[in-house]
Amino acid sequence: MAVYTDVNEEQLSAFLTEYDVGTLLSYKGIAEGVENSNFLLRTTKATLILTLYEKRVNRDDLPFFIGLMDHLAAKGLNCPLPIQRRDGGHLGELAGRPAAMVSFLDGSWLRKPRAEHCREVGRAMAAMHVAGSDFPIRRANALTMPNWRPLWQSSRARADEVLPGLRDEIDRELEILEAGWPKDLPEGVIHADLFPDNVFFIEDRLSGLIDFYFACNDYLAYDVAIGLNAWCFEKDGSFNHTKGMALINGYTSVRKLESAEAQALPLLARGAALRFFLTRLHDWLTTPEGAMVVKKDPLEYLQKLRFHGQIVSSSEYGHRNEENLS
Amino acid sequence: MAVYTDVNEEQLSAFLTEYDVGTLLSYKGIAEGVENSNFLLRTTKATLILTLYEKRVNRDDLPFFIGLMDHLAAKGLNCPLPIQRRDGGHLGELAGRPAAMVSFLDGSWLRKPRAEHCREVGRAMAAMHVAGSDFPIRRANALTMPNWRPLWQSSRARADEVLPGLRDEIDRELEILEAGWPKDLPEGVIHADLFPDNVFFIEDRLSGLIDFYFACNDYLAYDVAIGLNAWCFEKDGSFNHTKGMALINGYTSVRKLESAEAQALPLLARGAALRFFLTRLHDWLTTPEGAMVVKKDPLEYLQKLRFHGQIVSSSEYGHRNEENLS
Repeated sequence: MAVYTDVNEEQLSAFLTEYDVGTLLSYKGIAEGVENSNFLLRTTKATLILTLYEKRVNRDDLPFFIGLMDHLAAKGLNCPLPIQRRDGGHLGELAGRPAAMVSFLDGSWLRKPRAEHCREVGRAMAAMHVAGSDFPIRRANALTMPNWRPLWQSSRARADEVLPGLRDEIDRELEILEAGWPKDLPEGVIHADLFPDNVFFIEDRLSGLIDFYFACNDYLAYDVAIGLNAWCFEKDGSFNHTKGMALINGYTSVRKLESAEAQALPLLARGAALRFFLTRLHDWLTTPEGAMVVKKDPLEYLQKLRFHGQIVSSSEYGHRNEENLS
Repeated sequence: MAVYTDVNEEQLSAFLTEYDVGTLLSYKGIAEGVENSNFLLRTTKATLILTLYEKRVNRDDLPFFIGLMDHLAAKGLNCPLPIQRRDGGHLGELAGRPAAMVSFLDGSWLRKPRAEHCREVGRAMAAMHVAGSDFPIRRANALTMPNWRPLWQSSRARADEVLPGLRDEIDRELEILEAGWPKDLPEGVIHADLFPDNVFFIEDRLSGLIDFYFACNDYLAYDVAIGLNAWCFEKDGSFNHTKGMALINGYTSVRKLESAEAQALPLLARGAALRFFLTRLHDWLTTPEGAMVVKKDPLEYLQKLRFHGQIVSSSEYGHRNEENLS
């Protein structure tokens, strides 16, 4: 599932001589991560994750991703720490791929998160936003509002194959979102993919965030909107208000949402739902039958999109502003 | 690739209370093993492999497999040690599957084994044969000579789709093997699947054998014959005599081959090649396009089958009997 490129012992031994990590004891491909090849390594000195960056990752973005993890870890955020090479850099080459190693983070992702976990996720997301505020490299979000129309064009003609009427519905959604998308909200480094499989817990304690390979500069509140989509819906498609409240309260306990951010939240959440709908629809229509990838159903996000379209105030997600609280 | 059944944190926590292994720190699906779902677990006390047995494994065989690992580990062989439950057993149930945990074994399998590694494999195989000699449970080999004809019948009609003339060629092979298969060689517990991915090394030192899920009672020399097929051919299909010699010498340094075993080796190796040819051919013809499994080319084993058909003496594999040495 997540080993696209295998590595032989000669290649790996040569690669490891570039680092001060001791001698190799074992390496195993791990069945997590969708974009890259990941191995769990044990050496005489450490337990590490080795990542080989596959084609879908732009090589020019690697200094941003790796630099960001380094920056956040230095600020005390629990995230993988890139291992420094003997030459001072963090990026090497292995089996013809750019490759890096990061520290192994204990914890597992939750298959069945509860509201208390959503609160922890909100807190950790806000802590990441604060810690990332002085990160000097910038990376534009390649999957935000201006990118949706070209993405939609690649699937639009075949959309009604997936669901009759889908083409017209998404046409309308896109117009609404383009017209109303906020122009001036607080920006910063966002994770942009903080789904349950990217957040580790040990028992009920959040132990770390992983997979920063969609991180970018965008509206901070857009990350919260992604979080609402990723954490607060049940399997049957219903929105869990208790979880929404927990995630937002967790977030605002670390970083307050400005009133413009709170006001924009329904539209941001609607946009986030469209973003995941569009990439899933694209993958759904273009992934050949039989590829060794689990196709994710785009219609899950159509349902979320429709839900957000009915929301008029962030209080419906569980947000409480100062006045409500007093 | 090798996580057919996912496990959630509630199921896993409940399962772990049956063991004295401490608290869960992390679990990750690992991309190894073809038949079962495997997870690497870290707890506050240990690093473990958790296996969920999928449908292809017969539940009635599990006491043999788990008992064998326990027996071999107790005899000092480096192999996974099944972890005992609080109730004294080794087998539990998780996510609707029979499940067991074994100790984590350091080491990695070699993508590019050399002759020196083949020698180590021969030694370890013989040590396993010796250590298994007093294991009390028996399991018949379900993939040895009498089973080949029914297996062949399931593919025979479509064989010429894979290669014209294949049907007639395998018909002849099967007749030769059925007529000449030895009737009275030393028997014992064999691994029956000791391919490179089931043997771990740390640098050039063999650190352990894994995956005993084809182990059974059969001719000991048949395991050597499987080893010759698994370790001593190059990617271009040529037989590496130096590796053959190393594997056999490694084996006989621990357990001598009787002259009847040595004499039978070419036919046993031919049979072993047919056995892997037939299962691969069956999978090739029955695995639906697009299943999340890498299909292995049966023709690799046709080439090996033809090679062994030309061999008249075990000395051609590198075996030296006492007289040769003196």
